[in-house]
Amino acid sequence: MDNKTEGAVVIEGRAAPGPFVFVCEHAVNTFPAPWGALGLDAATRDSHAAWDPGALGLARALAAELHAPLVRATHSRLIYDLNRPPHSPGAMPARSEIHTIPGNAAVTPEARRARTEALYIPFHAALRALLAEKLALGVRPILVTVHSFTPVWHGSPRAVELGIIHDADPSLAEAVFAQARAQTGLDSRLNEPYSAADEVTHTLALQATPMGLKNVMLELRNDLIADAAAQAAMATRLGAVLRTAVAELAKREEAA
Amino acid sequence: MDNKTEGAVVIEGRAAPGPFVFVCEHAVNTFPAPWGALGLDAATRDSHAAWDPGALGLARALAAELHAPLVRATHSRLIYDLNRPPHSPGAMPARSEIHTIPGNAAVTPEARRARTEALYIPFHAALRALLAEKLALGVRPILVTVHSFTPVWHGSPRAVELGIIHDADPSLAEAVFAQARAQTGLDSRLNEPYSAADEVTHTLALQATPMGLKNVMLELRNDLIADAAAQAAMATRLGAVLRTAVAELAKREEAA
Repeated sequence: MDNKTEGAVVIEGRAAPGPFVFVCEHAVNTFPAPWGALGLDAATRDSHAAWDPGALGLARALAAELHAPLVRATHSRLIYDLNRPPHSPGAMPARSEIHTIPGNAAVTPEARRARTEALYIPFHAALRALLAEKLALGVRPILVTVHSFTPVWHGSPRAVELGIIHDADPSLAEAVFAQARAQTGLDSRLNEPYSAADEVTHTLALQATPMGLKNVMLELRNDLIADAAAQAAMATRLGAVLRTAVAELAKREEAA
Repeated sequence: MDNKTEGAVVIEGRAAPGPFVFVCEHAVNTFPAPWGALGLDAATRDSHAAWDPGALGLARALAAELHAPLVRATHSRLIYDLNRPPHSPGAMPARSEIHTIPGNAAVTPEARRARTEALYIPFHAALRALLAEKLALGVRPILVTVHSFTPVWHGSPRAVELGIIHDADPSLAEAVFAQARAQTGLDSRLNEPYSAADEVTHTLALQATPMGLKNVMLELRNDLIADAAAQAAMATRLGAVLRTAVAELAKREEAA
């Protein structure tokens, strides 16, 4: 892998041809200096509040399957949630489901600006540069963000296994949804368990929509991608889904 | 002025409080190395094909009037038009109105990527960082791009004096239009002589729309802002228009 560390962001397989570009904003539960653990105990730092368990492994396996670069975070989303703009309370949440985040209880404007400059700006600048370079070279990148969600939320079990979420342009999400239903036995749903109304499409809105790029957000229930073997198996299934969905979409748009 | 040169971009008055942020993508007709004059004669390099005459002077006067930063280009739009994405033919046009651009006749993908990396990526990264910092500090920036157009286009005179152009959110443009008609004698029109359909709202779409920022593009007929005195006088009128439009819009949105 031609990894390149750029502080707040790692791009794995930067030179991979694409056109797919995978993004994992909630890849890790690392709490680097100067922020540290935000006053959280080990159990909370390990929980889905701090990251999307399994998402990085799945995203890596998908990127390998589809010869695509992967742009991923290097810090917990509780320090800065890269899928939120700087003015969103959710960027540095004081609460997440059942957890309070002591280190986020009273973030001053200056501290908010410092986290934004250290983490959000370089992450999205690196992703933007990668997409812009592909566009300049005549490749239309396809942006796929990879997330996971917890099987139980506020005490209620979730039946959905694969959530397929879109921003302004639903075309790729709808094609992925059709293929997921046709090819996999997964309980697949459009815009569940979250949707753009929950602010979860910020990366898509920021990076794909203004460029007219096809895009989709994938949300996997994390019990289905708990270890490397499960992630690899899921990547094989979802890789085929993505490949077929893009081909079907291209065919349909050519015919239109 | 706390000018800061950052290669492809200059931010004038970076520390100015705003909330307005002015942008001038077509500020100058400079042809820096390694691109040089693109084979153009002096008359073409001086013409509106190469830049927006008067726009920088007007934008500077508006920024001073409204205590706002100004983000401006340092090169001719014929080398890279910062108001176009990297895959747009218009980013490095082979033709502009009546002019052919020899140096753009056959831009290779690698050369297109090099111009994108040298000019487009840093310009928009700097603007994004400025907006993100304001958002982190609790200020909602208002993005205003400042352009000029030629009084004669393909031989036909243009009657419009002030064009007010919007991207997805028309609210500020409509408020500016109402105030321009109420306060100035200018022949003001909405989405003339260009509109989003002509691809001219790329900066707004890229920088303002994903963040939900109020935004508008101002297009002045360049004979009305031909010298410093005219630019200063126009800035006084348009500064009042912008200030009132934002206040009216805030009042209306508060009432809604």
